Amino acid sequence: MQASNLDNRDKAWSGRFSEPMSDLLQRYNASVDFDKRMAEFDIQGSLAHARMLTRAGVLSEADLSAIEQGMSEILADIRAGRFEWTIQLEDVHMNIEKRLTDKIGDAGKRLHTGRSRNDQVATDIRLYVRAAIDEISALLVEVQKSLLDLAEQHVDTVMPGFTHLQVAQPVTFGHHLMAYFEMFGRDIERFVDARKRTNRMPLGSAALAGTSYPIQREYTAELLGFEQVCRNSLDAVSDRDFAIEFTSAASIAMMHMSRLSEELILWMNPRFGFIDIADRFCTGSSIMPQKKNPDVAELARGKSARVFGHLMGLLTLMKGQPLTYNKDNQEDKEPLFDTVDTLTVTLTIYADMLRGITVNKEAMRAAALQGYATATDLADYLVKRGLPFRDAHEAVALAVRHAEQQRCDLAELSLDTLRQFSTLIEADVFEVLTLEGSLNARNHIGGTAPAQVRAAIAAARQALGGD
Amino acid sequence: MQASNLDNRDKAWSGRFSEPMSDLLQRYNASVDFDKRMAEFDIQGSLAHARMLTRAGVLSEADLSAIEQGMSEILADIRAGRFEWTIQLEDVHMNIEKRLTDKIGDAGKRLHTGRSRNDQVATDIRLYVRAAIDEISALLVEVQKSLLDLAEQHVDTVMPGFTHLQVAQPVTFGHHLMAYFEMFGRDIERFVDARKRTNRMPLGSAALAGTSYPIQREYTAELLGFEQVCRNSLDAVSDRDFAIEFTSAASIAMMHMSRLSEELILWMNPRFGFIDIADRFCTGSSIMPQKKNPDVAELARGKSARVFGHLMGLLTLMKGQPLTYNKDNQEDKEPLFDTVDTLTVTLTIYADMLRGITVNKEAMRAAALQGYATATDLADYLVKRGLPFRDAHEAVALAVRHAEQQRCDLAELSLDTLRQFSTLIEADVFEVLTLEGSLNARNHIGGTAPAQVRAAIAAARQALGGD
Amino acid sequence: MQASNLDNRDKAWSGRFSEPMSDLLQRYNASVDFDKRMAEFDIQGSLAHARMLTRAGVLSEADLSAIEQGMSEILADIRAGRFEWTIQLEDVHMNIEKRLTDKIGDAGKRLHTGRSRNDQVATDIRLYVRAAIDEISALLVEVQKSLLDLAEQHVDTVMPGFTHLQVAQPVTFGHHLMAYFEMFGRDIERFVDARKRTNRMPLGSAALAGTSYPIQREYTAELLGFEQVCRNSLDAVSDRDFAIEFTSAASIAMMHMSRLSEELILWMNPRFGFIDIADRFCTGSSIMPQKKNPDVAELARGKSARVFGHLMGLLTLMKGQPLTYNKDNQEDKEPLFDTVDTLTVTLTIYADMLRGITVNKEAMRAAALQGYATATDLADYLVKRGLPFRDAHEAVALAVRHAEQQRCDLAELSLDTLRQFSTLIEADVFEVLTLEGSLNARNHIGGTAPAQVRAAIAAARQALGGD
Amino acid sequence: MQASNLDNRDKAWSGRFSEPMSDLLQRYNASVDFDKRMAEFDIQGSLAHARMLTRAGVLSEADLSAIEQGMSEILADIRAGRFEWTIQLEDVHMNIEKRLTDKIGDAGKRLHTGRSRNDQVATDIRLYVRAAIDEISALLVEVQKSLLDLAEQHVDTVMPGFTHLQVAQPVTFGHHLMAYFEMFGRDIERFVDARKRTNRMPLGSAALAGTSYPIQREYTAELLGFEQVCRNSLDAVSDRDFAIEFTSAASIAMMHMSRLSEELILWMNPRFGFIDIADRFCTGSSIMPQKKNPDVAELARGKSARVFGHLMGLLTLMKGQPLTYNKDNQEDKEPLFDTVDTLTVTLTIYADMLRGITVNKEAMRAAALQGYATATDLADYLVKRGLPFRDAHEAVALAVRHAEQQRCDLAELSLDTLRQFSTLIEADVFEVLTLEGSLNARNHIGGTAPAQVRAAIAAARQALGGD
Repeated sequence: MQASNLDNRDKAWSGRFSEPMSDLLQRYNASVDFDKRMAEFDIQGSLAHARMLTRAGVLSEADLSAIEQGMSEILADIRAGRFEWTIQLEDVHMNIEKRLTDKIGDAGKRLHTGRSRNDQVATDIRLYVRAAIDEISALLVEVQKSLLDLAEQHVDTVMPGFTHLQVAQPVTFGHHLMAYFEMFGRDIERFVDARKRTNRMPLGSAALAGTSYPIQREYTAELLGFEQVCRNSLDAVSDRDFAIEFTSAASIAMMHMSRLSEELILWMNPRFGFIDIADRFCTGSSIMPQKKNPDVAELARGKSARVFGHLMGLLTLMKGQPLTYNKDNQEDKEPLFDTVDTLTVTLTIYADMLRGITVNKEAMRAAALQGYATATDLADYLVKRGLPFRDAHEAVALAVRHAEQQRCDLAELSLDTLRQFSTLIEADVFEVLTLEGSLNARNHIGGTAPAQVRAAIAAARQALGGD
Repeated sequence: MQASNLDNRDKAWSGRFSEPMSDLLQRYNASVDFDKRMAEFDIQGSLAHARMLTRAGVLSEADLSAIEQGMSEILADIRAGRFEWTIQLEDVHMNIEKRLTDKIGDAGKRLHTGRSRNDQVATDIRLYVRAAIDEISALLVEVQKSLLDLAEQHVDTVMPGFTHLQVAQPVTFGHHLMAYFEMFGRDIERFVDARKRTNRMPLGSAALAGTSYPIQREYTAELLGFEQVCRNSLDAVSDRDFAIEFTSAASIAMMHMSRLSEELILWMNPRFGFIDIADRFCTGSSIMPQKKNPDVAELARGKSARVFGHLMGLLTLMKGQPLTYNKDNQEDKEPLFDTVDTLTVTLTIYADMLRGITVNKEAMRAAALQGYATATDLADYLVKRGLPFRDAHEAVALAVRHAEQQRCDLAELSLDTLRQFSTLIEADVFEVLTLEGSLNARNHIGGTAPAQVRAAIAAARQALGGD
Repeated sequence: MQASNLDNRDKAWSGRFSEPMSDLLQRYNASVDFDKRMAEFDIQGSLAHARMLTRAGVLSEADLSAIEQGMSEILADIRAGRFEWTIQLEDVHMNIEKRLTDKIGDAGKRLHTGRSRNDQVATDIRLYVRAAIDEISALLVEVQKSLLDLAEQHVDTVMPGFTHLQVAQPVTFGHHLMAYFEMFGRDIERFVDARKRTNRMPLGSAALAGTSYPIQREYTAELLGFEQVCRNSLDAVSDRDFAIEFTSAASIAMMHMSRLSEELILWMNPRFGFIDIADRFCTGSSIMPQKKNPDVAELARGKSARVFGHLMGLLTLMKGQPLTYNKDNQEDKEPLFDTVDTLTVTLTIYADMLRGITVNKEAMRAAALQGYATATDLADYLVKRGLPFRDAHEAVALAVRHAEQQRCDLAELSLDTLRQFSTLIEADVFEVLTLEGSLNARNHIGGTAPAQVRAAIAAARQALGGD
Repeated sequence: MQASNLDNRDKAWSGRFSEPMSDLLQRYNASVDFDKRMAEFDIQGSLAHARMLTRAGVLSEADLSAIEQGMSEILADIRAGRFEWTIQLEDVHMNIEKRLTDKIGDAGKRLHTGRSRNDQVATDIRLYVRAAIDEISALLVEVQKSLLDLAEQHVDTVMPGFTHLQVAQPVTFGHHLMAYFEMFGRDIERFVDARKRTNRMPLGSAALAGTSYPIQREYTAELLGFEQVCRNSLDAVSDRDFAIEFTSAASIAMMHMSRLSEELILWMNPRFGFIDIADRFCTGSSIMPQKKNPDVAELARGKSARVFGHLMGLLTLMKGQPLTYNKDNQEDKEPLFDTVDTLTVTLTIYADMLRGITVNKEAMRAAALQGYATATDLADYLVKRGLPFRDAHEAVALAVRHAEQQRCDLAELSLDTLRQFSTLIEADVFEVLTLEGSLNARNHIGGTAPAQVRAAIAAARQALGGD
């Protein structure tokens, strides 16, 4: 009877089993290699649980003191890298509990009263995701600040705006960067929303049905900073919605990073030559001595795919499971951890790298001058002189075709030539055909006029509460 | 000059093109077969745009009247199924605009002033998704109500709670159903959050950079019920975050439906025999005359995969695109529409089918009696008599092994036999070994005790604002 | 007893059911809207089954004649669009069988002897996929031929080869196109391999366990052109591997189309200006009169995502199903059909569009001259004079840095200047610094030297059995 | 000039760079933590390359000897775990090359002549995948053998065959297991096909365009056991089709494992009680002392999702990349490696675990007797007496409904009662209503009759070349 199932895993799982776990299963089953990352949260959760049990009269004050002392030493060992994890003890929970019991004896064995690994792990992951959300939200703000700084320098730097990767209309580089500011802003909103649903406490659900001990769930929740307790024990131990929702928000954020990366790669291609990325963020080639490659952007673009894959994996993982906890759920952690790591490191490096971008204003301007970027302005000019828009569109289309055959820009056609396409055209037309004329005309909320971009940046700075 | 590009698509796209579109491209490119579903939203958007342009002095009151009259007739035709859609006019926007111009002449050609199909389609989809969210949220409440009604009938119906699909502890069927109530509640929360980010207006962003007309975006937004205007035109025309976020929320909801379906299928299997689904929701076999199959549950389980696929498709679709609008975006609609349809019809049929479920209480109870469901209660009993939990666990494990060899339940062992495993056991042990004893002991928030389930149902009814 | 379950679906499914199917289920459950696409294959399968049953003595010759006559009329009706499909009869199989029975009476009712819808639908889909593979393989060859024709014209057209989208080394456009020839060649191989596993006959497996009638499966297989019969009935009715494998091959093919599309879009951007796509494959803008957009390439790029989503959906669909047939499987068809359609139409339009590409050789050459494309050749030159490669690499890296500061190409540096970086450099260095020198030096199997590309094209033509 | 770029990465990448790589990039960019797993293949490839260069006269015999000696020592260090990997040297290639150069000087620097990391890594991965395919194919055969052994013991063990998880017809457990034998057989076929396309050599493509050295690619291919050389250098360095195809085959194999797992979990549920899994493959619960959970099956079911996610990630990764190599490709390795690990360990444990399954024949038989499994046999009986199948189906449906109301099996109805449903029924009907009668009647290729299953097992053993 003395032999606890934790003492020696060369023995069977418990007295209910007639043979020990096979080595293969031990390795297939063990999660400690990856779930040890939750160790601090596991200890936090255990301490709060112990305090609640003490308050409820289930544990004695002496037990609590022993547990607190033991956990404090274990935490110090873990932080110092001295803690020896073993797959024989399967997971982070049993590794820590066994060590605690070794240190403090029966009080350690009493800690698991009124809980199960099912609600314990669910609590740990939620604490982990909550912390990840807070870190990621802060990093998203850092990236936004880098964008703001760069945008501010380029409020009136002209570049071609593309649709279909064809020249559409002139925009400013500052305006373009602020599009990403908006995207990352929505990402933050999504993480904040996901946090609400993450920050609910499963602890107290025990294995699945609750426990017969007089637990005080709201008190534990308060100690751990949870906003609510999960209201159904069966749901609480099997719910991984928060992990999926988090990974979905992360996927969208990585999709934004991928789009931005796609653009940086294009802009750094010599045909564009719009930007240069600082050498310290680039690598060369083992064979081609001239190469300088935008690796960060390429990696970020590639890494987005990996996060999408994790999202897919998590949804698929949960889809076929009957209630409540099934071991399939153990497979939630690696994709989740990798998602956190991928997004965190990508945001960190981008916040830095964006400040190391040099802009070639001349190349941007030259590109904006090629491709009839002000054709829409000419159509608008005609509309303002009374032509229905559709007719104006057709007149300008013909003028563009003519200019293309002449290999020149619209502004380079003579007034007489332009008037062949509409007699409504007069000498003042050349004002609307300039890049600056076009830019400044789009002066409303959301438009590309430098005045609007300046206002957008100011509003953004204020919203960030920042200097 | 009279020949508008809309008049006859056997001609080239516009005067800028030297040859007409190939038939193959016309079919590859046309979206009207699927985007006509947004027709009412397209017309709503056009009317609001026209009213704003009139207020801004760009359109005359006469133009506005003509547009309103023309659109009113077109809307009637569409609703009556009389409208003739043609792929020669590519999409819903140009089909409607061409018809309008045919009806009212130049005023119709003026409608497209100050906007582009890029911001027009972005606005239409957002209106569509907003409406879909509202309908789906209402349907989720319907499903919740069906669950509540069924749960209320089974507040003290005992069934085995499973973990790893092995008997774990007794729970009530009402408690089990309330787990799904929680899941669908979170789904509603997610849709409500997604709605905030959907309900922002891109209109006014024109092709990508804004427009040179004196538009009043807040006014248009007010007319259309948008909470905000999108703050960056480049972002506004290329953003499909809301579609992805919606599909992600739908995927999680379908994952919940899939889990519930998995359980219904299991429960209706004759080995379980826990429930029967009304005949009207089942089908037979073309070869096996005795068959009655739970098709709805199987289809719902299968359809979840399709929605996951759409989510993956949408993320992948957006990932590589540089700003701003690229034609790839046209591929957002079919997965989005199919997601809406799949979720809507699945929720509708479930809200109804859940009421057609008959429960076999005897079978549930019999199943709970098999599998040592109260073993944890015995361990807890020992803990309350002073044994550390881990030691109690081991003692009970050995008792279970003994009972299994005797092919009997723990409650069928004699007190003497039980005491072989722990001398702490006394005659009162048999009370904790009953199903009801076990259930009633779990009497805390979230626990399975009938009193708690009753309270949870009452709270849920109140939250639904219900009768 | 007279009332067959097929006669009137306002009645219950069969005498085993106490109430008719709900309208909602009828719609949720019916597959005829999409599976009618398999009608011809369903009839083929039925005719072969009937012939086998007749040979086995289960059907009379008279029955067979009646069935053949009836099916012939039904097929004519279907082809002429006269056949009236109804969801009350659920699927393609029951629609056709009911019509047959209406026409020929009891012989029609006898047709379903010794089979079930489970093996019937599995047979239909395999016939469908087999036909799709044959069509797609032929279309892939068409695309390959278009590539060959274009490559042949550009065997010595110089362009910059990119890695990391940075200029790497000069290559020929013909060589570049032949890379895609290789990809589509592998796609064909994969479809051929998938065909082997598709072309096995489930018919005869009946519902799941086989049938008690004296069927002759090899004979039916021979009539239908199947290479094997499925060797296990349980597997046969539940296996959808072939659909997944097909969709996987299609996903890879679409991934190749997406990469090619990405390049066409880049090359048509005015910064590159490498190619122009014929007007008939492009569209314009509703607002910007100058626009000419590469819609086909953008749509193909976007559509790849949709096929990936289908693959994901199919895998997920099958993952959780116990044997044998479950209704989830009905969800296999729409993604499969859409995959076939998407790939077929994309290949068709590409085979045509590739011939409508105009190449701007000057722009390609100019781009190759910018970016130090021959730096590797200089390093190789030094190695041939005895410097270890790594040292040569470093010497050239410094020379490139110097040239970049001087804003000139390596070939524009004087011999004296070049010798500052290595005294091994002599006057003959300028030969290796030319684009043609670089190209011609890579003269081995797979290399970019025009001679090699010519040989590759010749070999490809021969392999295609072509002119 | 002596300072190689490999000497000290605190310096810049090469002389072309003005500042060293940032620490962040060094970590973001480095792949050595995961690609070191390819070390043996990297060395194999280098040795073959060196031998070829020597034969071609590019390296001297002395250089080759030095390289062989150095590599031999490095390989020994790696195998002994003594090799010190550093992320400062970025990847497996540069770690090994730098060590080689440290050991043998200039000969080491000459090794990289005529190749690039682009073709080097592509070669390494193909060698890795080829080896993985061979190992996995062998493991699949092991699983097949375990299935055969178990099937052989249960050739006439009756169990209910399910469709829609409802009782359909009796089958034998041996027949059921042989369905999985078929699935894993197709998996092997797919891996064999994928191997053909994997076993082609990119080496010689250098960075992207081939090399100016007189390489002999066929010779290198012969040394490395490649069946072909890749025929286009641009394709060769950017192609990852083989990795995707491998992961697709692995996904299907894992889907099969997931289905089998789903069944094991069901069968071990006490409601079924069909099987027991040996204790050494199960675990218990930290709270519920009676629990014995089928962890392996649950984990395998869960792990399938992870592999699907990897497939999705790889497809998405490649989709948007222009030719040729982009750094995104570095993201191919982790999903690939994890796929190999997941499949390998899952197959290994299953091959073993399947032999540890105990079958409860009585429970299987009892289940087959419940649910009217022989109803189809009764319909077939009526057809053989002249009733059209559809009418027979309806007659039996009514009989089943009657029996269900009487809560008895068809065989328990009296002859008089049965004749109320069809006067064609006579006393011999009771023979077809037995389980064995039903089983033995399905005696054709693929059918469940024990004779057929025996034949299938014998054929399978022969095909495996077995005892």
